[in-house]
Amino acid sequence: MSNPSTGRVTLPAETGAEDTVVEMFDRWGADYIRDSDGTALSPQILEMGYQIYSTVCIVRADQEYPRANPKSLHQKFLISDAVTATSDSVEIDPLATLCRDKYELDFDNDPKRWWQVIDRTTGEIVPAEKWSVDNESGIVTVTGIAPWHSYTVNVLVYLTWDTTSMYNHIQNNWTTPKVISVDPYHQETWDHLMGFFDSWIDSHKDTDVVRLTTFAYHFCVDSDENAVDKFRDWTGYQDTISIPALEDFEKRFGYALTAEDFVDDGYYNATYRVPTKAYRDWMTFIQDFTVKFGKELVKKVHAAGKKAAIFWGDHWIGAEFYHPSYQEIGIDINIGAVEDGVALRRLSDTPGKLEKEIRLYPYFFPDVFREGGDPAGESISNWAKIRRAMLRMPVDRIGYGGYLSLAAKFPDFVQSVETICNEFREIRDGTDGELSQRLPLKVAVLNCWGNLRAWINYTNPHQKFLDKRPDVTVIAGSNMLECLSGLPVDVTFISFDEIRENGIPADIDVIINDGTGDTAWTGGREWADPAIIGPVREWVANGGGFLGITDPAGHQHNGRYLQLEDVLGVQKETGQSCMVAARKANTPDSHFITDGISEDIQLGAGMSFVYPASSDADVISTSEKGHVQLAANAFANGRGVYLSELPYDLENSRLLLRAIAWAAGKETSLDTLICDNPNTDCAYYAATGKIAVANHTDEPQTTTFSDAKGVQHSVELKPYEMTWVSA
Amino acid sequence: MSNPSTGRVTLPAETGAEDTVVEMFDRWGADYIRDSDGTALSPQILEMGYQIYSTVCIVRADQEYPRANPKSLHQKFLISDAVTATSDSVEIDPLATLCRDKYELDFDNDPKRWWQVIDRTTGEIVPAEKWSVDNESGIVTVTGIAPWHSYTVNVLVYLTWDTTSMYNHIQNNWTTPKVISVDPYHQETWDHLMGFFDSWIDSHKDTDVVRLTTFAYHFCVDSDENAVDKFRDWTGYQDTISIPALEDFEKRFGYALTAEDFVDDGYYNATYRVPTKAYRDWMTFIQDFTVKFGKELVKKVHAAGKKAAIFWGDHWIGAEFYHPSYQEIGIDINIGAVEDGVALRRLSDTPGKLEKEIRLYPYFFPDVFREGGDPAGESISNWAKIRRAMLRMPVDRIGYGGYLSLAAKFPDFVQSVETICNEFREIRDGTDGELSQRLPLKVAVLNCWGNLRAWINYTNPHQKFLDKRPDVTVIAGSNMLECLSGLPVDVTFISFDEIRENGIPADIDVIINDGTGDTAWTGGREWADPAIIGPVREWVANGGGFLGITDPAGHQHNGRYLQLEDVLGVQKETGQSCMVAARKANTPDSHFITDGISEDIQLGAGMSFVYPASSDADVISTSEKGHVQLAANAFANGRGVYLSELPYDLENSRLLLRAIAWAAGKETSLDTLICDNPNTDCAYYAATGKIAVANHTDEPQTTTFSDAKGVQHSVELKPYEMTWVSA
Repeated sequence: MSNPSTGRVTLPAETGAEDTVVEMFDRWGADYIRDSDGTALSPQILEMGYQIYSTVCIVRADQEYPRANPKSLHQKFLISDAVTATSDSVEIDPLATLCRDKYELDFDNDPKRWWQVIDRTTGEIVPAEKWSVDNESGIVTVTGIAPWHSYTVNVLVYLTWDTTSMYNHIQNNWTTPKVISVDPYHQETWDHLMGFFDSWIDSHKDTDVVRLTTFAYHFCVDSDENAVDKFRDWTGYQDTISIPALEDFEKRFGYALTAEDFVDDGYYNATYRVPTKAYRDWMTFIQDFTVKFGKELVKKVHAAGKKAAIFWGDHWIGAEFYHPSYQEIGIDINIGAVEDGVALRRLSDTPGKLEKEIRLYPYFFPDVFREGGDPAGESISNWAKIRRAMLRMPVDRIGYGGYLSLAAKFPDFVQSVETICNEFREIRDGTDGELSQRLPLKVAVLNCWGNLRAWINYTNPHQKFLDKRPDVTVIAGSNMLECLSGLPVDVTFISFDEIRENGIPADIDVIINDGTGDTAWTGGREWADPAIIGPVREWVANGGGFLGITDPAGHQHNGRYLQLEDVLGVQKETGQSCMVAARKANTPDSHFITDGISEDIQLGAGMSFVYPASSDADVISTSEKGHVQLAANAFANGRGVYLSELPYDLENSRLLLRAIAWAAGKETSLDTLICDNPNTDCAYYAATGKIAVANHTDEPQTTTFSDAKGVQHSVELKPYEMTWVSA
Repeated sequence: MSNPSTGRVTLPAETGAEDTVVEMFDRWGADYIRDSDGTALSPQILEMGYQIYSTVCIVRADQEYPRANPKSLHQKFLISDAVTATSDSVEIDPLATLCRDKYELDFDNDPKRWWQVIDRTTGEIVPAEKWSVDNESGIVTVTGIAPWHSYTVNVLVYLTWDTTSMYNHIQNNWTTPKVISVDPYHQETWDHLMGFFDSWIDSHKDTDVVRLTTFAYHFCVDSDENAVDKFRDWTGYQDTISIPALEDFEKRFGYALTAEDFVDDGYYNATYRVPTKAYRDWMTFIQDFTVKFGKELVKKVHAAGKKAAIFWGDHWIGAEFYHPSYQEIGIDINIGAVEDGVALRRLSDTPGKLEKEIRLYPYFFPDVFREGGDPAGESISNWAKIRRAMLRMPVDRIGYGGYLSLAAKFPDFVQSVETICNEFREIRDGTDGELSQRLPLKVAVLNCWGNLRAWINYTNPHQKFLDKRPDVTVIAGSNMLECLSGLPVDVTFISFDEIRENGIPADIDVIINDGTGDTAWTGGREWADPAIIGPVREWVANGGGFLGITDPAGHQHNGRYLQLEDVLGVQKETGQSCMVAARKANTPDSHFITDGISEDIQLGAGMSFVYPASSDADVISTSEKGHVQLAANAFANGRGVYLSELPYDLENSRLLLRAIAWAAGKETSLDTLICDNPNTDCAYYAATGKIAVANHTDEPQTTTFSDAKGVQHSVELKPYEMTWVSA
């Protein structure tokens, strides 16, 4: 596995650990050097001859300005806990279960104008003359109201602690002063930041690449009174509020937004919510502003003869990699943190001809690199998933962040990184940076967001019951995207709006609609729109494939929950038809979709409450009590497939591929370049004539496949081994 | 266990089995004799000296009349399958998946007036000029419509096969001509039936009791093209339609009903649906008519010097035992089929000072009494549940139905019935027909129906996946009512309408709201009405107890699903707040509710998706992944308890009792007259000074309890034994 090549690897360095830097850079073949949160590069390091990345997050780089200008802080709307009135008045402490180190009530802007007291029993706004707020305690007193209704206050707050800084303090025990960040929407803040950035560039003569983390607005993590995460939305626009922005929004869109437009019944427009027009408009507004801001910063970077890199994290909101306007900013390198195949594809599939670099986990921080921690284990299990996806869609560089000196203390981790760096360079050599050959199958994932949320994990109700590690997205339950990330098929993401505007693109073979009902992932009320369901039915009837997972087209409406019952042949019992009998469906002994798949497929927790709705449907798999887990159905010239859940594993990934091929009516497409052993994959690169063969497991595997010419290959693979054969 | 007493037992007899009749009557101590479906009483039997029940179902007794007057048949509205239009026209066969032996399209009444074609994609009615129907084939052709929408036809049909007759043909292989029944709403039919009944009475001189089965309208069982049950609603008014009734309804209520008012999006106003005003009004209309009809029949019975009994089954719709107007009919004996504690209480709790008789299972029919059948097993396991409930609320008589000669061939069954008859008479002697002493706890079960659906089992989505035996209601999943049926507490059922009109009765200690969300059992949209949720909160805050099971007050509205989050301290994840963290609740090591209950309580299938919403809530039990199964919460001076599901078993019954006592704040009420062993119960009767002690299991049990004076009793019980001690 040793490979003498070097390059394509970015590593962090730190003052005082110069010897370690040299040793690790040599061993891992690194060529770019970077600083990280909490580290700096000594003159000695800067002179080692590597390309230099310097990290700057412009809205939090200068800590003097926000302390002198507290009105420049980021702001947001928060909802209080609901309090039930036991008389005709009620007192509400808006921050009762919110972190007072992170949020400060805004009394600079008139609470009577920007706050809202809402009767959550009726949904009505309580007139402002019925409540008052004590500026000292923050307590809101509401009078003259209906007792035994439940009341909330929407408040405008300043964010007095940067979310990433808070994370580092809590998770990594940092004791440095808390960082606060500013909103460049304020013109004077914008002006200050631009001046500050000019000086910063001046003082970074050695820097080759400016690594921006990122532009203006942090993703949302709210914290409770114990500083524990209370709400998270990695793609949410909750922390983008300022009064000038709200006022400019009204001028541009012709209507004003109120706190409730953001509070959204307490659901905060989370990405899984079927989005409202107001929230979509606000996103557009913030995106436009952020692009303008980013463009100005990048112009300065380029003027100084440096490259601009952007890290897809922290303050990335508004700078959407998949948004068309992103290309206007002029970024040279997209960097993203990557823990699995979905995250790899999220970055590797981003549009634009720019370099793509992934930052691997674990981050060299004491949360993982500690006595009893297993950084090597995390490293290799992540890499197996990332590599599986990378065989389909490569990137240009890999890298790490944190304290290099800490990582160097774990010899098995050092060894695992050496393997990863070499394998990555092998992939680049073997593929010449091209895509692996695709099967003639194009999949469109259909949801409310389309490409804007390409490769964003769907969360579902299981997520609530998962013990989370705050720095990594771990998906509970169904995870179709991870299965999909490593399949040799073309993937696109489309939205309901696109179908309404342009119909379904002609080159799509299979539409996937996957997730919990009444969420953005499946579409909820979108399926009540004849301009959606009609075209989808027509497209399937004309030969398309529709693959629905969990609650596809799920929305209680006009007497059914799964709106595409005709296409899928199944229906879900929601309690409205308990005493309606299921239809007697076919239960074939075998089916193309499960051919070669073991008997004990794991399609979720057991009870889908889905039953046959057509006597023509093929029920291929059910759980114990007869809940449908996998069904296939013909609909005119097209096909529908239902899957209850699809947790990620290698068998389920294979099942997904077979379901896609069957739904598309292209079963024979799997005859070549598919390994017979689902624990392994092969990927053919026409540019080099090479085939990569990889074992994704920690056990030895034997695998066989036919190449494009029909020649059969049989390969033995050690645990996690990847090897190359010539076609 | 032998007991020489006789009486209080009704048995079926049949011509040709006279010796068996004598033998069984002697052995079981029977005193009333009856005929059954398919049997007749010979002169010899009539002269044996027993009281004679004669069964008559007036609307199906005469088979000549309906054959001569086919327009007199019962009618109903049915919905076709939904058919997706693949062009601008579509053909629909309304009966494609319905039983053609049971339903005949009504072309006598203008289809254009009474049928409806509905676009189920938009919910709009297709104008009648756009469709036509072929009177030969029944096919409906719809033209000029939007392709790729889904269409249904609501049709008016004649019921050409009586539901019970069909059941006997299919399940019991009867080969007699199929029975058809008539609707007395037609004046000429009414007149004919009255004349027929006069003759019938004249020809039944020996009859002491006329057993009516029942009056006018059968409960609903719809059958598919293979004559398999397709939809059931034992309490539904689907089969009560006639054109004169619809016309009279409009005159009385001032608005007309259409097919869709009955079809209800295909859900047919099933009892678990949150009822519409139109359906409630129709029920009132049919109830009034049925009472009028029944009154006339009973007047004739009484005029002939006989008693009138009514069997709670078959054509009982409109004759609601719990409806106030029922008392006007003048019935002397209520008879009900009883398979468990819930069914016992359903009958034993019926209002009015009349005799109450239960018909036990198994029915002496070949479906159970066959080679390999286990009638004795079914008999004793049913009896254990019935007896448990009967100790709280006795009835006056027990009985059986079917072919006595068939039952006599199963010696262990004959023995089990002997035991049951003797134990029943012991209970009557020991209780003097009085109630057992109650704890000072009164429970109100709150749902959309109130007392009208007292002790009606709730079905839930699990029911869909249960292999059903058509003659017995077997409840899948949660079954709180069965647990409740044997508890020494007062029980009432109240409706949301009653709360709106009169508030919550002052004598209630605990309200139970139990079932699937958005159903009649929990109330659905009722909880969005401040006139419901306000008074309930106020009542709890003033010291009431609220016990919620599964989805109590469950209805997505104003940012929450469980509307009483403040009372219950928990919330349910429906997919709208996956990334909102649960609150950290208390997890007490022990709690009054689970005191003495074993560790592995079975509170349902595992995943409730319910999480703590308050840091003050006590989470007492969770399933593997932390889904809340049992939580307790204080709300001002009152208490809330959440239970995920409550399948029936003896431990769960005890748990329910403890939860009720805790919610009521009356923990000490359980100090006396409660057995320490949950597999046993004691019941004290002040009238006789006796205490019944019963073992509900098939294993020996030891049990201890304190009587009302605090004297401790310890009792050894054989399997299923019941014994008596003096207080």
